[in-house]
Amino acid sequence: MTLNIGIIGLGFMGSDHVKRVATKINGARLAGVADLKQDLAEKYAKEYGAKIYKSGIDLIDSPDIDAVMVVTRPHETHEQFVLHAIEIGKYVFCEKPLTLTAAGCKKIVDAEVKGGKRLVQVGFMRRFDPGYIEIKKAIDDHVYGEPLLIHATHRNCSVDETYDTSMSIIETAIHEADVLHWLLGEDYESGTTFLPKKQTKYTHSKLHDPQIITLDTKSGVHIDLEVFVNDQIGYDINCSVVCENGIISLRSPFNSSVKKGLYDQTYIPKDCTERFATAYDNEIQEWVNGVEADKVTGPSSWDGLVAMVTCDALAKSRDNDAERVAIVLPDKKPSLY
Amino acid sequence: MTLNIGIIGLGFMGSDHVKRVATKINGARLAGVADLKQDLAEKYAKEYGAKIYKSGIDLIDSPDIDAVMVVTRPHETHEQFVLHAIEIGKYVFCEKPLTLTAAGCKKIVDAEVKGGKRLVQVGFMRRFDPGYIEIKKAIDDHVYGEPLLIHATHRNCSVDETYDTSMSIIETAIHEADVLHWLLGEDYESGTTFLPKKQTKYTHSKLHDPQIITLDTKSGVHIDLEVFVNDQIGYDINCSVVCENGIISLRSPFNSSVKKGLYDQTYIPKDCTERFATAYDNEIQEWVNGVEADKVTGPSSWDGLVAMVTCDALAKSRDNDAERVAIVLPDKKPSLY
Amino acid sequence: MTLNIGIIGLGFMGSDHVKRVATKINGARLAGVADLKQDLAEKYAKEYGAKIYKSGIDLIDSPDIDAVMVVTRPHETHEQFVLHAIEIGKYVFCEKPLTLTAAGCKKIVDAEVKGGKRLVQVGFMRRFDPGYIEIKKAIDDHVYGEPLLIHATHRNCSVDETYDTSMSIIETAIHEADVLHWLLGEDYESGTTFLPKKQTKYTHSKLHDPQIITLDTKSGVHIDLEVFVNDQIGYDINCSVVCENGIISLRSPFNSSVKKGLYDQTYIPKDCTERFATAYDNEIQEWVNGVEADKVTGPSSWDGLVAMVTCDALAKSRDNDAERVAIVLPDKKPSLY
Amino acid sequence: MTLNIGIIGLGFMGSDHVKRVATKINGARLAGVADLKQDLAEKYAKEYGAKIYKSGIDLIDSPDIDAVMVVTRPHETHEQFVLHAIEIGKYVFCEKPLTLTAAGCKKIVDAEVKGGKRLVQVGFMRRFDPGYIEIKKAIDDHVYGEPLLIHATHRNCSVDETYDTSMSIIETAIHEADVLHWLLGEDYESGTTFLPKKQTKYTHSKLHDPQIITLDTKSGVHIDLEVFVNDQIGYDINCSVVCENGIISLRSPFNSSVKKGLYDQTYIPKDCTERFATAYDNEIQEWVNGVEADKVTGPSSWDGLVAMVTCDALAKSRDNDAERVAIVLPDKKPSLY
Repeated sequence: MTLNIGIIGLGFMGSDHVKRVATKINGARLAGVADLKQDLAEKYAKEYGAKIYKSGIDLIDSPDIDAVMVVTRPHETHEQFVLHAIEIGKYVFCEKPLTLTAAGCKKIVDAEVKGGKRLVQVGFMRRFDPGYIEIKKAIDDHVYGEPLLIHATHRNCSVDETYDTSMSIIETAIHEADVLHWLLGEDYESGTTFLPKKQTKYTHSKLHDPQIITLDTKSGVHIDLEVFVNDQIGYDINCSVVCENGIISLRSPFNSSVKKGLYDQTYIPKDCTERFATAYDNEIQEWVNGVEADKVTGPSSWDGLVAMVTCDALAKSRDNDAERVAIVLPDKKPSLY
Repeated sequence: MTLNIGIIGLGFMGSDHVKRVATKINGARLAGVADLKQDLAEKYAKEYGAKIYKSGIDLIDSPDIDAVMVVTRPHETHEQFVLHAIEIGKYVFCEKPLTLTAAGCKKIVDAEVKGGKRLVQVGFMRRFDPGYIEIKKAIDDHVYGEPLLIHATHRNCSVDETYDTSMSIIETAIHEADVLHWLLGEDYESGTTFLPKKQTKYTHSKLHDPQIITLDTKSGVHIDLEVFVNDQIGYDINCSVVCENGIISLRSPFNSSVKKGLYDQTYIPKDCTERFATAYDNEIQEWVNGVEADKVTGPSSWDGLVAMVTCDALAKSRDNDAERVAIVLPDKKPSLY
Repeated sequence: MTLNIGIIGLGFMGSDHVKRVATKINGARLAGVADLKQDLAEKYAKEYGAKIYKSGIDLIDSPDIDAVMVVTRPHETHEQFVLHAIEIGKYVFCEKPLTLTAAGCKKIVDAEVKGGKRLVQVGFMRRFDPGYIEIKKAIDDHVYGEPLLIHATHRNCSVDETYDTSMSIIETAIHEADVLHWLLGEDYESGTTFLPKKQTKYTHSKLHDPQIITLDTKSGVHIDLEVFVNDQIGYDINCSVVCENGIISLRSPFNSSVKKGLYDQTYIPKDCTERFATAYDNEIQEWVNGVEADKVTGPSSWDGLVAMVTCDALAKSRDNDAERVAIVLPDKKPSLY
Repeated sequence: MTLNIGIIGLGFMGSDHVKRVATKINGARLAGVADLKQDLAEKYAKEYGAKIYKSGIDLIDSPDIDAVMVVTRPHETHEQFVLHAIEIGKYVFCEKPLTLTAAGCKKIVDAEVKGGKRLVQVGFMRRFDPGYIEIKKAIDDHVYGEPLLIHATHRNCSVDETYDTSMSIIETAIHEADVLHWLLGEDYESGTTFLPKKQTKYTHSKLHDPQIITLDTKSGVHIDLEVFVNDQIGYDINCSVVCENGIISLRSPFNSSVKKGLYDQTYIPKDCTERFATAYDNEIQEWVNGVEADKVTGPSSWDGLVAMVTCDALAKSRDNDAERVAIVLPDKKPSLY
């Protein structure tokens, strides 16, 4: 009745999920943790009464663990754990990106298809955000007619020196790569990445910041996306869908406003765990419900693959002077998805 | 490890809590239900795999039930169940108002004090709302200096014919009676209720709507509160605290905005379960955590009594031409609270 | 074709009107100025090519001056100039308050009635503000049904030591005393002024700040008004009219918004000349148009009297422990108005 | 002292300017009008007491007219009137676009340079809008560091069948072509125009709607602009300047907000004369002031030429599959500008 969850990777996102599973999710308990940093494992095991596993593989293999969450860094480490879980037939939630290459994603899709059962959910939490859900419902119900354009921004306060030019796409824009085609219910036709000559002084030599991305869907909806990861203002996520009869826009939630010193002001969240707290909660709750029902329906490894193929096209455009690059998905979508 | 919750009363709020306990609360499960309407009991028992109890008393007495939620209507039925739970030493959450008279509240406080242990939590969910919590933190931290005034509105879409003039205070304004003195961290000195001559055409002969309430605290903070329960616009809860250096205001959450037909618009929630969904979730999660830790810290039966004494003064003012009525709490607050 | 305007009083508001007449009003020119402070008179005369008059009376009497604006301080000096203009049959615009006593206003009304022609316009500029005009139109057109309640605030950044307790009514609340009954199209029945025990630390010994005023109209619309003149946040004027089917609220205009440092913010005007710049322009333009057409239609000396009678009632309430005081207008409204 | 203004062209914008000059501008009067449609000329001449001229040339030549406004349609008719005014040395205000070709603009610039005196002001009214002025001041004062990106939208309710694909640039985007480089204080390097495959059903066969434009400045600021002229929602002009330390955004003014039927809403202007009423007033007032001072400083014919060169590049890009097209200004800017 209560699902025993094991979490591999206890960094920024991993520790956020640890707390979530241990204190906010119905029908689940934090049963085990694993991290290369032993002190992190000890800290969270003690705090929430979970068992420490020597390695991610040990945790996955344990009969005491019903389902696994993979939240390791760097992201290329995801692949081995996800594949192992598939191999032994255990449900696995994997933070985005699923892996860092389309080939890696394809390997996971193939393994899952071979097993004949959906076992993987990818951490595209925005699909569980109330704002995106309201927009999707409006689009699906044709409330404002056909969508024509999307304007989006993905802005972060700041990043450190380990974050380089490629990560603006693979780490950051990947969220929009997933959520925008899900919103529209159709595939992308092509994309571009443009590096404006003028950059912020807050960036470093290995990071071109900001970057401008466009995506065009099969039906011809045009999307522009600003990726700006040193904005100094907050975690500022915007998405406006211009339709034939109206424009629906995502709004960052706030609970109070303040008038002081000639200004009326509302708060901008400072990071993704704050902005998308509800989305993360809903995401993991639905995953747990799905595992208990033996039928997971959230973002699949196929979605992880689609996002990565999109990112690859955007990276190719960036490296070729912002030329328009076709986004070509693998030949046919397996019936599993 | 998992708390077995039993819920008595499966109406509008009861069914909302049933769903909450069964699907959203960590460390809890819906174990039992009871309602005079057998079909409701059967419906929810079946939907969530809970046991049906013939009566509220049976449910409370059951060894399979670790803790009880009392959500019965009419509200005067709360008292017997809460007293019975206290008697047998079981934790009990009771929706507001605790009972309908100060005497009834006092009986519960006395029973609890006699037992020597806090067992009761009252459903003043606003104390768990992120907006009120932000405001309270700003006040407690003196971010904007001393609070001087509060302007509040409590507006509902509409009410039916069973809702009469007295309920504007005892059913509706009671929320502000509780949350505003909690925000300010001090007791009320006096209150008034004024019935404006002009009423909405949407009211009926037994309901004076709207009503205007004022409260003044011991330190002299002045509060005005509009209670308007047929506003036709939504469940519109506002609270602005005017401080020496700034004004902090509660804002209803929204997740998207729409531009259409010459208007830019955001949504107003339609009822309390929508507006305060997060507050209710947090309230019950903290109650469950408290029960598991054998130490409940949410709104107490003393708070229930304070709110009812306040309501009584406001009712007296209403019946005496809006004269200022002193709000006098029982002689000394028991050390239990 | 071009109206020659003379302005008496060149302080804060006077100099604002000087600039307005000289540079923004169609069909008018600044022809003359007068002020007890000779240097002010010289400054503005030089800046805008106007003639200096030794006294206000000289200015009024001059054949070179077609119409007069009285903007003198202290306000009790208004009366003599307005009466003199009436006497010689010259149009006169007088800043609010018309005078400081109801008796003084009555004397002006009587003089004007005796002359048989409307010559006076009082500076209740809010009637010319686009926001108030939108609200009045919605009320007059019954767009949201009958008005039931009004919540208003009149907040200033700060005042100096010359501003005392009485001025919160006679200098500040007088704006609402005029504009709110104009909005509603009906007279007041009664009013109260309450002095909350808690005051801001930014006030001084002769000023009780903030103050809470209520007004009830003949039909029973209930109004509450916060007067807070040391708010430290800006010139923050609010007015929400709660109707049967909707709530319409005044909004301070702003032209841009800024996101910075975790906040999304908009500007609050710092004083009345900024907040009501458009209203002042419209007011004077309509007055000039009226003078040219020999038919002035803006706020009359009767409106000035009504506002002062209202202020007197509010002052009496303040001095009598916030008791409800009837607002009784002179027996019959002269047909001139 | 009072400037006698003659207006040629009395259509949508012309009649708006007629009313403005006649009733809102200080130091000016409407002295003459001319229009091919005799009934329009008669209507406005009668309404405002102006003289009718048989032709625009007659009006320009008249000694009773001190300065001329050219507001004729179609826009190619501007050129002859502006050239004639230059020829006889009379100040002339010309609505945008100055003419419909860069060659035509160049001819005007050359004529003006030859005459040795600035006589022309072009109707780029946005430079006089309080919102754009606030943004420009923030940029010029480096309040938020260096500007990096601009996101803009230019949306109209709807257009009729005479408005074709080319006009999205030459009639509509020309406003941003002018105002954005003025905001930034630098020239454009290149531009693109992209026609998204998906169009609104509200367009017609000769109009591709919406269109997406980009502009990059010499320093590398990247701009994207949505032009959507059948948006069905209102005249919705947006401009966000993303800087290193903050984002400043234009906001459409509104004076009141309304809560009704589960929505809190504010008004969107329905057309340019409503949205930019203040900008138009300021524009014409400053022009009149400039003419009186014999020194006009508003947007010049050079600015008109720059805008048209920009539009030509955007049109070329549109016709060449959205290729990036360099924006090359004439060799050297005359010292006159």
